Amino acid sequence: MKIRTPRAPVRVPGFMFAGVACGIKASGRRDVALIASNPPAVAAAAFTRNRVVAAPVIVAREHARRGRARAILVSSGNANACTGAPGIATVRAACAETARLLGVGAREVLPCATGKIGVQVPRARLLAGVRAACGALSPSAFWRAVEGISTTDAFLKGGSRQLDIGGRRVTIAAMAKGAGMIAPDMATLLAFVCTDARIGAVPLRRALHAALAQSFNALTVDGDTSTNDTVIALANGLAGHAPLRPGSGEHRRFTAALSELLDELGRLILLDGEGATRCVEVVVSGARSVADARRVARAIAGSLLVKAAFHGGDPNWGRSLCAAGFARAALDPERCRVSIGRVPVARGGRGCGNETAAARVMRDSEFRVTVDLGLGRGTARLRTTDLSPAYVRFNSAYST
Amino acid sequence: MKIRTPRAPVRVPGFMFAGVACGIKASGRRDVALIASNPPAVAAAAFTRNRVVAAPVIVAREHARRGRARAILVSSGNANACTGAPGIATVRAACAETARLLGVGAREVLPCATGKIGVQVPRARLLAGVRAACGALSPSAFWRAVEGISTTDAFLKGGSRQLDIGGRRVTIAAMAKGAGMIAPDMATLLAFVCTDARIGAVPLRRALHAALAQSFNALTVDGDTSTNDTVIALANGLAGHAPLRPGSGEHRRFTAALSELLDELGRLILLDGEGATRCVEVVVSGARSVADARRVARAIAGSLLVKAAFHGGDPNWGRSLCAAGFARAALDPERCRVSIGRVPVARGGRGCGNETAAARVMRDSEFRVTVDLGLGRGTARLRTTDLSPAYVRFNSAYST
Repeated sequence: MKIRTPRAPVRVPGFMFAGVACGIKASGRRDVALIASNPPAVAAAAFTRNRVVAAPVIVAREHARRGRARAILVSSGNANACTGAPGIATVRAACAETARLLGVGAREVLPCATGKIGVQVPRARLLAGVRAACGALSPSAFWRAVEGISTTDAFLKGGSRQLDIGGRRVTIAAMAKGAGMIAPDMATLLAFVCTDARIGAVPLRRALHAALAQSFNALTVDGDTSTNDTVIALANGLAGHAPLRPGSGEHRRFTAALSELLDELGRLILLDGEGATRCVEVVVSGARSVADARRVARAIAGSLLVKAAFHGGDPNWGRSLCAAGFARAALDPERCRVSIGRVPVARGGRGCGNETAAARVMRDSEFRVTVDLGLGRGTARLRTTDLSPAYVRFNSAYST
Repeated sequence: MKIRTPRAPVRVPGFMFAGVACGIKASGRRDVALIASNPPAVAAAAFTRNRVVAAPVIVAREHARRGRARAILVSSGNANACTGAPGIATVRAACAETARLLGVGAREVLPCATGKIGVQVPRARLLAGVRAACGALSPSAFWRAVEGISTTDAFLKGGSRQLDIGGRRVTIAAMAKGAGMIAPDMATLLAFVCTDARIGAVPLRRALHAALAQSFNALTVDGDTSTNDTVIALANGLAGHAPLRPGSGEHRRFTAALSELLDELGRLILLDGEGATRCVEVVVSGARSVADARRVARAIAGSLLVKAAFHGGDPNWGRSLCAAGFARAALDPERCRVSIGRVPVARGGRGCGNETAAARVMRDSEFRVTVDLGLGRGTARLRTTDLSPAYVRFNSAYST
């Protein structure tokens, strides 16, 4: 499932990009990326909910609190996680160097990292990378920056959307790296959004969180939450329309475009990855509540047995019902229906004998499993992958 | 890791056993087991917490409520789960036939099943099996009954302990089947305890639940809770000592012996199984509470990435700390220590460079990972396996 995204040129007014190699990655590939906005941008961010967070997450949370930023600095190949005070000092030094060279404040630089846990970042190399990146900034270097944030990704993930707001053309571009099944603790999810929309910090945060709920927060590979996950959106307002107000039609359209873009990147993340051969959409409907629907979707999409059956193209609906049963949601087996694609496989908690047709649906690399609990109106949707022997082989390799 | 348990003869005064083949299993192996006690026994049981439960679980819960039983009837090869009203009718017919032949009440028979989900049990074959089992009952057929409850188990799991209570010799025997990594929805956990101890229903239930907390409820293979899990203890009092009172030293010794026996069976279940190459004990200490310690142990023992690293013998402590971080427990990375065997690998949330020694520990098929959170006195212990490519291959095979 190696899908190459077309690398159409991506430019966003007021944004410059760089991606350089400084020797953090043993492979010699680009390992420092820089995104800079002039004028200063409004910033919104979302971070991992793990209690063990990497040094750059600690610093970026602190810097992002102001709701304004000039640059995002990313290093890849080393997560700078579980590295204690020296790890934090390295992040601060890199932010200070970036700020000095760009002529901005250190707190206007949002740092991120991705890669191996528990190893100190070689500080001198990183600082050399920062200097090279500042010198290489260019409005046309979007894809070089994407290379700079990627680690074990099999292909680059980025794209853009344009929409018209009050007669002005607004661009939203986004890049992401990760993770899929490759090696989530070496290749955590990072995503960056650059837009010239004119929007305040609060409405930008609201749009970002709504878009995340529909995209990155609706996919699961192995249920592990990384130490480094970071999503940052920068909006510099150059499009010049009237500010986007929450609740307005324009804000809704902006949010929808952002959702669509991040959802597409999320899909690419799932399709990437050593071992993934299926991208499966798990849809739960008829739950007593949305919370119940989410619990059931998470139990099904997270079950090793369900995911192994996906890998084998086995329409083993009993495993999905069994997972629904231990999801701690209201459930009456007699009311459950399960479909694979459009083929009903279980009804009233019993099989309806369409396994051959369902197995045919599962030959595709993308399909949907629907579980209707028949109890209410709660629905949820989660994208997941299959579990393949290659995933285990890749993740059991000696890496520390 | 094919470990053969020595099949020493197991006899318990007043108990008779049978294991016969009736054609539910395509292989022609024994697929009906019967355990009968004369005199009638006090009964305690624990059932799966899944909301989707198999037909025999529904009936056994109803029958076990009385706290007394004469027989346990087990069929293997078909779980009789997700089979609706016809499935329940099959169970009731089998209990009635057993009761008729043994001259007891149908409610004194506790039914269990294990095997494939979603397929009706061939009723005529099962009833023929019941008749054959009733005719074959013998005090010395313990291991034939164990064969009758097993499915994809690579070896039989059973054993006994004796202890002295008030000058009388008391025997506790137990058998289990499952599950390990073989195919938990085809090979769920069943366990049966037979003892001649003299004990009431309430103290027996208390002993059983205490023992389960230390054994079967402290192991995880893939986090899926089956539709059929059932543990039943029968005590017929023939040992003739004074009744065991909760809180007494005798009750504590009885509970300890039962715990030890079930823990050993639990260990055998983990060691069995297509694909398992490691049995790992995850010990969490220093948590703010026992609940927190359990959450952290479960997150570590359930993480695909941690389990894949176990498979590769990779002392990747960062993955364990990362899993601890998303366990929703109180946690300060700076206070965490991680050891593999007796080798400290992380301290103060940072590596301490003993990876080579730790990798040596992980070459064994059984080792311990200890995570000390440094916050309080809460501890928990969980046994788990590694995740191997063979697990995925086995569980992705077309089986419906």
